[in-house]
Amino acid sequence: MRSVHVAGIGKTAFGSFPDRTLKDLAVEAITTCLKDAGRSASDVEAFYLGNFDGPSFTSQNHLAPYVAGAVGITGVPATRFEAACASGGSAFFHACQSVASGIYNTVLVCGVEKMTSQTTARVADILAGAGDAQFESSVGATFPAIFAMIARRHMHQYGTTREHLAAVAVKNHFNASLNPQAHLKKVITIEQALAGKPVAEPFTIYDCSLVSDGAAAILISSIPHQVRIAACAQASGPVALADKPDITTFPATKAAAAKAYAQAGLSPTDIHLAEVHDCFTIAELIAMEDLGFITAGQSGPWVASGATAISGLLPVNTSGGLKAKGHPVGATGVAQLCDLVIQMRGEAGPRQVARASNALAQNLGGSGATSVVTILQKS
Amino acid sequence: MRSVHVAGIGKTAFGSFPDRTLKDLAVEAITTCLKDAGRSASDVEAFYLGNFDGPSFTSQNHLAPYVAGAVGITGVPATRFEAACASGGSAFFHACQSVASGIYNTVLVCGVEKMTSQTTARVADILAGAGDAQFESSVGATFPAIFAMIARRHMHQYGTTREHLAAVAVKNHFNASLNPQAHLKKVITIEQALAGKPVAEPFTIYDCSLVSDGAAAILISSIPHQVRIAACAQASGPVALADKPDITTFPATKAAAAKAYAQAGLSPTDIHLAEVHDCFTIAELIAMEDLGFITAGQSGPWVASGATAISGLLPVNTSGGLKAKGHPVGATGVAQLCDLVIQMRGEAGPRQVARASNALAQNLGGSGATSVVTILQKS
Repeated sequence: MRSVHVAGIGKTAFGSFPDRTLKDLAVEAITTCLKDAGRSASDVEAFYLGNFDGPSFTSQNHLAPYVAGAVGITGVPATRFEAACASGGSAFFHACQSVASGIYNTVLVCGVEKMTSQTTARVADILAGAGDAQFESSVGATFPAIFAMIARRHMHQYGTTREHLAAVAVKNHFNASLNPQAHLKKVITIEQALAGKPVAEPFTIYDCSLVSDGAAAILISSIPHQVRIAACAQASGPVALADKPDITTFPATKAAAAKAYAQAGLSPTDIHLAEVHDCFTIAELIAMEDLGFITAGQSGPWVASGATAISGLLPVNTSGGLKAKGHPVGATGVAQLCDLVIQMRGEAGPRQVARASNALAQNLGGSGATSVVTILQKS
Repeated sequence: MRSVHVAGIGKTAFGSFPDRTLKDLAVEAITTCLKDAGRSASDVEAFYLGNFDGPSFTSQNHLAPYVAGAVGITGVPATRFEAACASGGSAFFHACQSVASGIYNTVLVCGVEKMTSQTTARVADILAGAGDAQFESSVGATFPAIFAMIARRHMHQYGTTREHLAAVAVKNHFNASLNPQAHLKKVITIEQALAGKPVAEPFTIYDCSLVSDGAAAILISSIPHQVRIAACAQASGPVALADKPDITTFPATKAAAAKAYAQAGLSPTDIHLAEVHDCFTIAELIAMEDLGFITAGQSGPWVASGATAISGLLPVNTSGGLKAKGHPVGATGVAQLCDLVIQMRGEAGPRQVARASNALAQNLGGSGATSVVTILQKS
């Protein structure tokens, strides 16, 4: 397998943009990315689009040639990848494989979602499709409810507290306040997080990620650049919570992480910073454990200690995460990688971390049925 | 690139199955396929699912791990590929790349769609998402209308007649009557086709493919088998009809065909039989031209002459095609390949063709925004 590099990145701000279409957002991210790479649409040998459910959110399907055509990419394979909230990560995974294996030299990955034109109830309904429609959403188990059950079990099994969950929210809200492209720039305290509007016990509104519009793009290449993709792995697991023997861990993340660490020749202690899939605060805690950063059950006290703050031992979600940067579903997996590259290039401004040579991203789909783990390294 | 082979195939019957879920159909196709290959779920290194719009048709999204889990495939990448009606072909294309490039040795491709649980109006609405929602479906240009415009232009430009279109329908209805797994087994005459219920001028109901439930699966492998994948290529083009300089040809098919012929070292005259994307009768005529079987504009008289009948020079859609075998959208691209393999193995019974060493499949998405061309060869 050949070495694969990040030739360019581009992101839109995340937020609620009533006047901008899915196409507008994708075009901005791609145009910014191609400019960053100093390349043009005609250099793109294949187009990989991560999108969760454009058809339900926007009535537009067949989105890969739709977006590709809008930026002048035509005649080459243009494909949409869907893996729930890991759609962006999955598109990136397949793109990496294609360059690593020598099929192409230069390919473009884009992730996009336009969610805010739907009502909150309809959004919850569309997102519920990422769980088991027959056994979960049909009986009212939407994603906040599913992850609340996971949190409850983690609390029961390990003594994790609501304060531990709130610590994730406080950190990510603070980080987002330093990110000009974040959806929410509202610094909160532990007390505010705990006193938030209840969503699903033990979650308040501050335990839940945002419903956002946004897009992100990465051009990857076989030609050496500043940041190298040292590893990228995708794995799957059960869709329904009821099919998991232990709901406090996601085997797909563990499997993808094991493959990625082996591929990169690195271990968890070698990682300097990470962007992980904090769709709910509990998901960030579990990611810490599944990725091997901390022993199972110990993530709560560890994160509450400040270990994952920007100035901590292992800064996590310096972008603000899905929690506060925003979570345009299909864009998330690609945006996480853009945010790591910004840190690795030393362009993160007030949220810049000290060490950023080895960085990891984890993108989760559903309640863990898909997980993609990517490791980036400075060349 | 390594040689890639068909290790096994499996298909459900196509039809309207009110008592069977999407999962039931996919599981049957995969189980049949693994049995045909003499392999088990644990041999599958990655899972490629072609599905157009399960979320809208069935409320279930995140379909790749959902289906994979149901047959015991877990811990490996499981991804859904969407490219409108070419979703199955696109999943197959990416699967082939992964084996050809040495990433995996054995991967499973499945295509599935469950459409008949929705009303006809809702189906038309969901399918319209494969066109341009803003400039086509929003002003009433559903797919029958779009392809009717294409047919009208072909008639104007080349003198193609309604009888030429009807000849495609008559042939494919006859072929389907010989296929035990076809949706419709109703032999029709030219007169019946012309006198069918009008849909969109010049189309009657007999010019339009069926709305079906069904699934198909193929196990592909680096280990030599009876049928080899000599080439597989995907290309894209404009989504909206208004963006095409000439609506009587699909540049994506031409681009994919050129790549596929070059990859296989074959020319159109070397092909012994083909399964092409006859979503409407005109699409089969245009496929004949875009694939280089006949000069542009000459497909009508050529097909009407019987050249593409089972006993003709180049048998086309011996399965009955989308027209009469049925068109469960995401399954179609995979089913076409299964049907070719059945012919190549000499297992096609009363519809068996004489020569079946080199076979071609063409799978089209939307009004030509995606096209996948695959060439199979007897090893």
